[in-house]
Amino acid sequence: MDKLDKEILKILSQNGRTSFKQISEAVGLTSPAVKTRIEKMEKDNIIKGYSVNLDNKAVGFMVTAFISVAVETAARDEFYSYVQTCPNVIECHGITGHYFALLKVLFKSTMDLDNFLNKIQKFGETSTNIVLSTYKEPHNINLMDEEI
Amino acid sequence: MDKLDKEILKILSQNGRTSFKQISEAVGLTSPAVKTRIEKMEKDNIIKGYSVNLDNKAVGFMVTAFISVAVETAARDEFYSYVQTCPNVIECHGITGHYFALLKVLFKSTMDLDNFLNKIQKFGETSTNIVLSTYKEPHNINLMDEEI
Amino acid sequence: MDKLDKEILKILSQNGRTSFKQISEAVGLTSPAVKTRIEKMEKDNIIKGYSVNLDNKAVGFMVTAFISVAVETAARDEFYSYVQTCPNVIECHGITGHYFALLKVLFKSTMDLDNFLNKIQKFGETSTNIVLSTYKEPHNINLMDEEI
Amino acid sequence: MDKLDKEILKILSQNGRTSFKQISEAVGLTSPAVKTRIEKMEKDNIIKGYSVNLDNKAVGFMVTAFISVAVETAARDEFYSYVQTCPNVIECHGITGHYFALLKVLFKSTMDLDNFLNKIQKFGETSTNIVLSTYKEPHNINLMDEEI
Amino acid sequence: MDKLDKEILKILSQNGRTSFKQISEAVGLTSPAVKTRIEKMEKDNIIKGYSVNLDNKAVGFMVTAFISVAVETAARDEFYSYVQTCPNVIECHGITGHYFALLKVLFKSTMDLDNFLNKIQKFGETSTNIVLSTYKEPHNINLMDEEI
Amino acid sequence: MDKLDKEILKILSQNGRTSFKQISEAVGLTSPAVKTRIEKMEKDNIIKGYSVNLDNKAVGFMVTAFISVAVETAARDEFYSYVQTCPNVIECHGITGHYFALLKVLFKSTMDLDNFLNKIQKFGETSTNIVLSTYKEPHNINLMDEEI
Amino acid sequence: MDKLDKEILKILSQNGRTSFKQISEAVGLTSPAVKTRIEKMEKDNIIKGYSVNLDNKAVGFMVTAFISVAVETAARDEFYSYVQTCPNVIECHGITGHYFALLKVLFKSTMDLDNFLNKIQKFGETSTNIVLSTYKEPHNINLMDEEI
Amino acid sequence: MDKLDKEILKILSQNGRTSFKQISEAVGLTSPAVKTRIEKMEKDNIIKGYSVNLDNKAVGFMVTAFISVAVETAARDEFYSYVQTCPNVIECHGITGHYFALLKVLFKSTMDLDNFLNKIQKFGETSTNIVLSTYKEPHNINLMDEEI
Repeated sequence: MDKLDKEILKILSQNGRTSFKQISEAVGLTSPAVKTRIEKMEKDNIIKGYSVNLDNKAVGFMVTAFISVAVETAARDEFYSYVQTCPNVIECHGITGHYFALLKVLFKSTMDLDNFLNKIQKFGETSTNIVLSTYKEPHNINLMDEEI
Repeated sequence: MDKLDKEILKILSQNGRTSFKQISEAVGLTSPAVKTRIEKMEKDNIIKGYSVNLDNKAVGFMVTAFISVAVETAARDEFYSYVQTCPNVIECHGITGHYFALLKVLFKSTMDLDNFLNKIQKFGETSTNIVLSTYKEPHNINLMDEEI
Repeated sequence: MDKLDKEILKILSQNGRTSFKQISEAVGLTSPAVKTRIEKMEKDNIIKGYSVNLDNKAVGFMVTAFISVAVETAARDEFYSYVQTCPNVIECHGITGHYFALLKVLFKSTMDLDNFLNKIQKFGETSTNIVLSTYKEPHNINLMDEEI
Repeated sequence: MDKLDKEILKILSQNGRTSFKQISEAVGLTSPAVKTRIEKMEKDNIIKGYSVNLDNKAVGFMVTAFISVAVETAARDEFYSYVQTCPNVIECHGITGHYFALLKVLFKSTMDLDNFLNKIQKFGETSTNIVLSTYKEPHNINLMDEEI
Repeated sequence: MDKLDKEILKILSQNGRTSFKQISEAVGLTSPAVKTRIEKMEKDNIIKGYSVNLDNKAVGFMVTAFISVAVETAARDEFYSYVQTCPNVIECHGITGHYFALLKVLFKSTMDLDNFLNKIQKFGETSTNIVLSTYKEPHNINLMDEEI
Repeated sequence: MDKLDKEILKILSQNGRTSFKQISEAVGLTSPAVKTRIEKMEKDNIIKGYSVNLDNKAVGFMVTAFISVAVETAARDEFYSYVQTCPNVIECHGITGHYFALLKVLFKSTMDLDNFLNKIQKFGETSTNIVLSTYKEPHNINLMDEEI
Repeated sequence: MDKLDKEILKILSQNGRTSFKQISEAVGLTSPAVKTRIEKMEKDNIIKGYSVNLDNKAVGFMVTAFISVAVETAARDEFYSYVQTCPNVIECHGITGHYFALLKVLFKSTMDLDNFLNKIQKFGETSTNIVLSTYKEPHNINLMDEEI
Repeated sequence: MDKLDKEILKILSQNGRTSFKQISEAVGLTSPAVKTRIEKMEKDNIIKGYSVNLDNKAVGFMVTAFISVAVETAARDEFYSYVQTCPNVIECHGITGHYFALLKVLFKSTMDLDNFLNKIQKFGETSTNIVLSTYKEPHNINLMDEEI
């Protein structure tokens, strides 16, 4: 991955729908060269996909929360399946510290979140932090930044 | 926002680069009708942008961590500026619980994370959880799902 | 609910036994108009009832405490029933954070509280905070306040 | 305070607007006797007032939270004044445990709560638990209950 | 219990072996009057006994620790019996907070304490604080002190 | 310190006012021999004094609490002086764990405890556990016990 | 163990491969006298062995972590066996505080650490702290230092 | 670093004083070849040195403890210097979680540890865990183990 790849990724991070033509003009390559580079990064799994950034509140999900779960050993397999299929879990990691997993979840109301907690707590104890406001929306790291 | 809008958003969530034509075929609208709907959702701020999903490890950022920060009152303004400009902070929320803010950060090594903690801790005490593995990558909620 | 409704609620918050006549004089409506408005707010479930504020110590309940309970999943139904019927639990909420429920309880002595904890702890681990002094008694929010 | 007083308080706890006449019929006393007993309990500060029970969500306050505050010693006086005058604090106690004070607060949105936390955190560190659902609304203890 | 009783208790708190004669001289009563008062306080269970203050390290118990135990409900009765009969537990209380009981224990070595923890932890999780130094030895409150 | 010394200490632990004569009969020594042994143990600081065991509630101190204090470094000297002179602190230790000192305190009411916390918290943050009931009163370890 | 023994141990702490001859020159003894002293310290179990200090990252172990484990009573024996045989556990202690055991572990990647946590958590809940940087490598205390 | 290097390191891990000759016989190389390999690993900083394993209690250090320190930002430089020069700190790491640094310390008595805590706490709050027993002494990871 060279500097041109990074420039391409920076452009796609800012707007994932930028056309090959627009990218080629910005980076000084031909359009097919851009396409080849992008396809290579897709094949190398550097690019895992493209998405649209939604305003969760605007689409009706008023409550964003982070939930730490101390999943009990015997319940791990069932927990993994549940997390994979539950549509409200939009992100899930295994983490260091006292808990086993950290979930990011979206719900229409605190009542829905309460129902979810009732279900998830059968896997182990939880600690829930509701998002009060967002200072910086999720976004890609800028690979062109010299300081990182 | 009707059911057709939700279908469009579902398609864009799965692939943000899907063309108007492909979407129009999938949802049974004309291509200009799809374009109009999408532009309306962009204008209404339902759609905030489009992005590319990177494999952070593949682009050299081996360490993902969540950092809770109990930012001291006097340091709030400086903290906000710092977080906005620091390229390694890829997400930041104000949360309930004992801490004030939750940061998601990316670093090339634990040593770089250590340097960052040295800087961020001047704003208040922190608690750091490193991501050991990711069970579910960040993604959009499926608005077509009946159960959510 | 308009400004007059809010004025009526403010008056009733300060003294729940204020007569329709007294309210009507204060807000500049006829007595039947006040009655109609109050009955509407009762019907709309804005007003859920009227109560008397007791001095708990004066009626013999020397110990007020807040108890957080991490109710285990299997014990939830039994916990709900117990809390509903136990006269010493005067308030109970499902909350975010590490615990599942927050109870406000009244007891005649710390010994009685100790007995209660012995019972409630079969539902899950608890954390108990005894009220040492009360800086602001429970009261209604002032709907006429411009700043809230 | 004898058994008849307790019966009167039970009736007023259930409906604070019950008339002297209705109470007198229920407890088998004359109406003036009921009035005299109630006035005595008011004078003895057993009865501290009468209020109306509002549905906080119905009057626009969607967020109820409990906030623990570890108020720093030097900031105590200022904290007391602030809590007394802040309309959103509807209850405040000094408690045992790690924190100094426990506040019950009402806000129209999580954003308003976030602003409040920004102000209150200048007095000391806080821990915030949002109410997800209420299993038992605040109410008076039943003095006629034999088991308490 | 009057002021003379308090003076007698102060003297006995300082030296539990002070003779009736010495006490009578100090408080200005006859020796039989002192005896009568003390016997009354013993009968009224104000005085529960007399003891000798040992230097625990001098008698071979190098390790003093406070252990908080979150005794599980099912194990309560067995826990009470164990604590009553275990000679190393020299004090045990039911307390508010996260834990159920607080024990004060004495051991000859940290290895002995480790063995004890292995036993006591079958009743529930524990948190152990070892005494590093003692700033104020256990003693009676001075009932003659005007400020307490 | 031999087995006879231990027997004498056991007798004095059970009743600190046992006369030399009674002890001599119990252990099979002459009364002067007992006196000599006790005086030696006093001189060797094995015996630090004699005291009377009071029922704290019976003498008016309804509230017993354990307070952990994270004394700030700059306030240590002032903290030591305060603890030494404050009559309500009946025991104080430096301990391992998160806090610096553990205090055992007696107060007439929770209000008095609240006032004390206001004073002590200027030295650092505190965590307070109130005693709900006492399963085993403070007492000496039995040096004759074979198992300890 | 006299001052000469301490000097010998200091030399061996700095370089465990120093020959008897080099030590004898440094401490002013004959080579056989040094050998005799060292053998005696080996026999007295003061010296438990000799080792080589490796750079864990250089030999491929990128992740060092400390894991606290609240081992459940019933699982203790199995836990001890597991810890003894698991090659990644390079140190294990029983400790005071909330947890039962503290492990120092080495892994090639955070993914391997995650797998290990999945196994170890069947013995009880854990809390994991990853080493971000090392300010002082493990080494022997300097017995010649006057201040310790 | 090949398999032979790993065999040499395994031998040195078990006994750091094994001669080149003994190693050469064990691994089937000539003695000079072993020497060359070891010197290369020393030069490559794979081998950082050789040491002697002492029994800390046998050399007079009865108390081993792990201390977590939340070093305040302004005190970092002074903390680093202190830790480097303080002979009782035998290991120090920067770690994830709530605290900043984890220290392993050795002291002759709990009193000495108490004095140390008094000094170290000026850098920030601490949490101290005393080692009660050691289940597995610090040792090198076995690079020949197939399972790690």
